[in-house]
Amino acid sequence: MKIILVGASGDVGQAAFGELSQRHDVVRVGCKSGEVRADISDPSSIEAMYEKVGDFDAVVSAAGDAHFAPLAEQTDVTLKVGLESKVMGQVNLVLLGLKRLAGEGSFTLTSGVLDRDPVVAGTGAALANGALAGFAKSAAIEMPPGVRINVVSPGLLDVSEGRYGALFPGHERVPSEQVGRAYAKSVERAINGQVVIVE
Amino acid sequence: MKIILVGASGDVGQAAFGELSQRHDVVRVGCKSGEVRADISDPSSIEAMYEKVGDFDAVVSAAGDAHFAPLAEQTDVTLKVGLESKVMGQVNLVLLGLKRLAGEGSFTLTSGVLDRDPVVAGTGAALANGALAGFAKSAAIEMPPGVRINVVSPGLLDVSEGRYGALFPGHERVPSEQVGRAYAKSVERAINGQVVIVE
Repeated sequence: MKIILVGASGDVGQAAFGELSQRHDVVRVGCKSGEVRADISDPSSIEAMYEKVGDFDAVVSAAGDAHFAPLAEQTDVTLKVGLESKVMGQVNLVLLGLKRLAGEGSFTLTSGVLDRDPVVAGTGAALANGALAGFAKSAAIEMPPGVRINVVSPGLLDVSEGRYGALFPGHERVPSEQVGRAYAKSVERAINGQVVIVE
Repeated sequence: MKIILVGASGDVGQAAFGELSQRHDVVRVGCKSGEVRADISDPSSIEAMYEKVGDFDAVVSAAGDAHFAPLAEQTDVTLKVGLESKVMGQVNLVLLGLKRLAGEGSFTLTSGVLDRDPVVAGTGAALANGALAGFAKSAAIEMPPGVRINVVSPGLLDVSEGRYGALFPGHERVPSEQVGRAYAKSVERAINGQVVIVE
């Protein structure tokens, strides 16, 4: 399969690459690195990415940000960071990708643990994760024949401990290899409309 | 209790009013009707509403729209309708209300069935509903002492059959009185961070 991996340089993206590249042709896309550059917060950048990559069998996204801050400091503006980047960035990868996918294929998005096991300062991420789960479950029933969509929802990766560990007290750390296999489950099996929880 | 009911004229708002007004002082707020007018898609309109109403014990929101269309016709713009109105409108009611709530109190938002039992053309609503659930679950752990937040997620109300029935084939219709009681459960009990499903 030819798989477009968006957000390839992040910890989750590298976990997905480690698993999927063993059996597939993975095109790494990033906003600052990768074989192809794209900023998913800009739909025209997504279009340009698809144009450059050409035909594909699957899109895996591990991209998008949310703003971490205590609820009392969150505002309309800070909460919209997650909605515009992590949610609509990934949703637009699906909407625009669907127009270019001729036959069968799949889309795999990435949410995270914070909408089911919240932490202080994680409201922006929880909002975004919930939106992605709702979108995938609903979009799944309207996919063209042979096309699927799932969301992988990983807990904090072991390799992310240094950067995000302080935000996740008491959360179990998830081995990166286990996160990688969740992407294989979404891409290579026949599941559709599922939130693949990794914890 | 003095309860601010936003979206009071809609089917869900009327169901909430029917239940809560039996025991409480309910101030009805709407964008086109009600004792106080407010457009929740505009944070300054929310501020003006809170200023006008004064002290309160609870906010119940049954307001906000999402765009219904087949997935193939949804775009960045149409999916953002739900994120800006149903999601951020209700979220801003919480963020701005928290700054005005001196003591104990509660916030009750409204999502809907479509993120757990999707229908064709319902992706915008599913996206919004999922976001609201994620937000409430996470915000709940950061509420000030004695302040709670929940989401009521009703199925299609019996009284909404004429307007929305065609979109919900095979969905059970929910009696309005049952939906009303879900708001009493959120406002009058001690639950926090729950999605109160009515189906």
